[in-house]
Amino acid sequence: MAFAAFEATFGAVTIEIINTGSELLLGRILNTHQQWLCSRLTQAGYTVARQVLVSDRGEDIQQAVREGLSRADLVITTGGLGPTCDDITRERIAEMLGRTLVFDAAVSESIQAFFQSRGRPVPPRTRVEAMVPQGAIVVPNRQGTAPGLMIEASPNSFRAEGRRSWLVMLPGPPRELRPMFDQEVLPWMSREFPHETGFVCRTLKTAGIGESNMEELISAPLQHLTDGGMDLGFCARVGEVDVRFVARGADAASVVAEAEAITRRLAGDAVFGEQDEVLEGVVIRELTQRGQTLALAESCTGGHIAHRITNIPGASAAFLAGYVTYANAAKVRTLGVREESLREFGAVSEAVAREMAEGARRVSGADWALSVTGIAGPSGGTPDKPVGTVWMALAGPDGTEAVQRLNRFDRETFKFTTGQQALHLLFRQLKRPLRPDSSATGPA
Amino acid sequence: MAFAAFEATFGAVTIEIINTGSELLLGRILNTHQQWLCSRLTQAGYTVARQVLVSDRGEDIQQAVREGLSRADLVITTGGLGPTCDDITRERIAEMLGRTLVFDAAVSESIQAFFQSRGRPVPPRTRVEAMVPQGAIVVPNRQGTAPGLMIEASPNSFRAEGRRSWLVMLPGPPRELRPMFDQEVLPWMSREFPHETGFVCRTLKTAGIGESNMEELISAPLQHLTDGGMDLGFCARVGEVDVRFVARGADAASVVAEAEAITRRLAGDAVFGEQDEVLEGVVIRELTQRGQTLALAESCTGGHIAHRITNIPGASAAFLAGYVTYANAAKVRTLGVREESLREFGAVSEAVAREMAEGARRVSGADWALSVTGIAGPSGGTPDKPVGTVWMALAGPDGTEAVQRLNRFDRETFKFTTGQQALHLLFRQLKRPLRPDSSATGPA
Repeated sequence: MAFAAFEATFGAVTIEIINTGSELLLGRILNTHQQWLCSRLTQAGYTVARQVLVSDRGEDIQQAVREGLSRADLVITTGGLGPTCDDITRERIAEMLGRTLVFDAAVSESIQAFFQSRGRPVPPRTRVEAMVPQGAIVVPNRQGTAPGLMIEASPNSFRAEGRRSWLVMLPGPPRELRPMFDQEVLPWMSREFPHETGFVCRTLKTAGIGESNMEELISAPLQHLTDGGMDLGFCARVGEVDVRFVARGADAASVVAEAEAITRRLAGDAVFGEQDEVLEGVVIRELTQRGQTLALAESCTGGHIAHRITNIPGASAAFLAGYVTYANAAKVRTLGVREESLREFGAVSEAVAREMAEGARRVSGADWALSVTGIAGPSGGTPDKPVGTVWMALAGPDGTEAVQRLNRFDRETFKFTTGQQALHLLFRQLKRPLRPDSSATGPA
Repeated sequence: MAFAAFEATFGAVTIEIINTGSELLLGRILNTHQQWLCSRLTQAGYTVARQVLVSDRGEDIQQAVREGLSRADLVITTGGLGPTCDDITRERIAEMLGRTLVFDAAVSESIQAFFQSRGRPVPPRTRVEAMVPQGAIVVPNRQGTAPGLMIEASPNSFRAEGRRSWLVMLPGPPRELRPMFDQEVLPWMSREFPHETGFVCRTLKTAGIGESNMEELISAPLQHLTDGGMDLGFCARVGEVDVRFVARGADAASVVAEAEAITRRLAGDAVFGEQDEVLEGVVIRELTQRGQTLALAESCTGGHIAHRITNIPGASAAFLAGYVTYANAAKVRTLGVREESLREFGAVSEAVAREMAEGARRVSGADWALSVTGIAGPSGGTPDKPVGTVWMALAGPDGTEAVQRLNRFDRETFKFTTGQQALHLLFRQLKRPLRPDSSATGPA
């Protein structure tokens, strides 16, 4: 469906992204700008036709921008606006467009205010950040010093029929680029490059149903909407599947609302969130709203679930403790897992998973406790318990449930997938009252 | 120094990377190929001049490859070699180069063998993967079905003076692309694009010394080597600094060896590894060699350190248990931290850090125990204990040492940096016998 979604929005307005930075071409840092900008633009109904990465060399930047302006309605550059010697994007692009750089007093004042508010002297080099190409629109930088710049290349000598093109220059640091793009550039784009018609894009986050099963589940029930022009997209990520609805036209909102309602009814509690939500964040929010608490007993995930949970600001309101009982002795000492269970069933078993969860709940005093025990690999598998075998259990107010999974992945994918399955086990219980299953009475 | 390093190798051979995939332009997945390939090529002494990302549309792929061949000696494409309908790179490039696609029986057999070894039927669609552009060199794919392809565009109608260019087409899945590039393409490049002279590139991984301090420490002592043409590069990452030596010529090896020896002598145990090593991996290796064990008591890092440790295959040989005692009650119940210490000094204090480490060592029976307690933020700071305040302690056979740090970062950077500092505390002790410091007698 990715390709369909791509076609759907292609052609409306041509956008190209130019990332600059030798650090990127040397492979020292990952180019997160490309994905972030493309994702944001897609959500807003635009499609990026091409992305180019060039070095910090002046001629490379100029050539890339010249080529971009010859093809695109909007060219977005990232990086090279700072005060250091290799930040030359501003100068070289002004030179290429034949614009003189003018000192902007307002920008200079905001730079001084930035340092004063932090009780630091103003570095002389930052003066260059107040130089603005003639006729450029200054985009305020609330997280840093170098402002963004928007220049209309008109008449555009680089483009056939002299069509107008816009050049938007963004600073390199993500914590500066991202709010600037969301708060200033996107609103400006909606005015400068309006969609002919209404546009609504909505993503549902799901777990527990594979991509092809999800497609099978909802494609037919949504066909009257897709036939009507709504784009239905699926994106399989590790341990989750995004379902995306894109509609245009006067009734876009109601079309997407109907698609969402049908999907939620059919997929039930496989739907855990919307847009950019993560499962651990939703679980912490649900627990906090209920005034309930959580503990974790991790073996094969080795602290990964606790790490994800504690990445959520405010997690301490609901998360009490995590026990990474990697060695069997730790399972016994810390969680009170019975030696006999380990001997009789082995560390990766329903009995041990249940005793770990119940022990973690008892020791921590939490309302809920999740446990996982399995074989992450690459070694440690046996014929009856191959690498990837996992037992997980959830101990709660009304009893304990345990499930088995087989996750055959590389070590880190194994950890994330297993953690996702465990968190989803809890999410489902937080969504509906726990009905203890027949075997909810301790280990078999 | 990044820029210097860039200049140093620029010009030798011009390389461009073309990534294809609408998924990438829609921002659904991160383009990890770009960084990985650039990093590998840099290590091998090559520099990438430009990277371009285009959609899966045939005309976009052809235009990008045409432009690449008009500029570069080597063009590397990723993706679009699979069996599905949007995998059209092979066909469109053959069309553009005027090469007919020929059925390759050997490739077809290896594809059949791939599925037979997995007891799965051969999907009919995979037949297209056995179609090879006339005159192309087939690069075996040991992890998948679609082979890589290498085509010499000669005479190169796209390039001035008809200079030769090579086109290397790699499959999209990283687990297929990476071994293929390391095992087949790089060795081929060293023959096809040899460095005029010897080339040695070596990276030392360091922690505990900032980038500018490291530069101050070793730049002058290495100046006779840099004056002689050796490139000295620094790359500051979160919680660590890479020091990189690049030399060319007959004496490249001895030059880099001398630079490494001088740096190791001056930086001491700030140097924890080489090339791509990670601190947690080195710590696990050292512990395993000594037959010693480790436990963790984490508060503010919330399981992040345990997660990193357990990402290392074989960690179970040395890692016994981690206690994520997020709530104070958990610190008391699980680790035996004294209520009075929490009352008198607060959870973020030297006393509590020491009691956490000593408690974790006692409860787990490990030889070593690391503890961290701090204020990750964004909230929770006080005037005397601002956000970012951290106390960490290491309890070992000869006593306990505790240190304070101030890590003012976003939540995830805070976790990594704090974890790095804690692991480095242990690394330093594993490098030399622990001499208990004056205050190594339990909490003050």
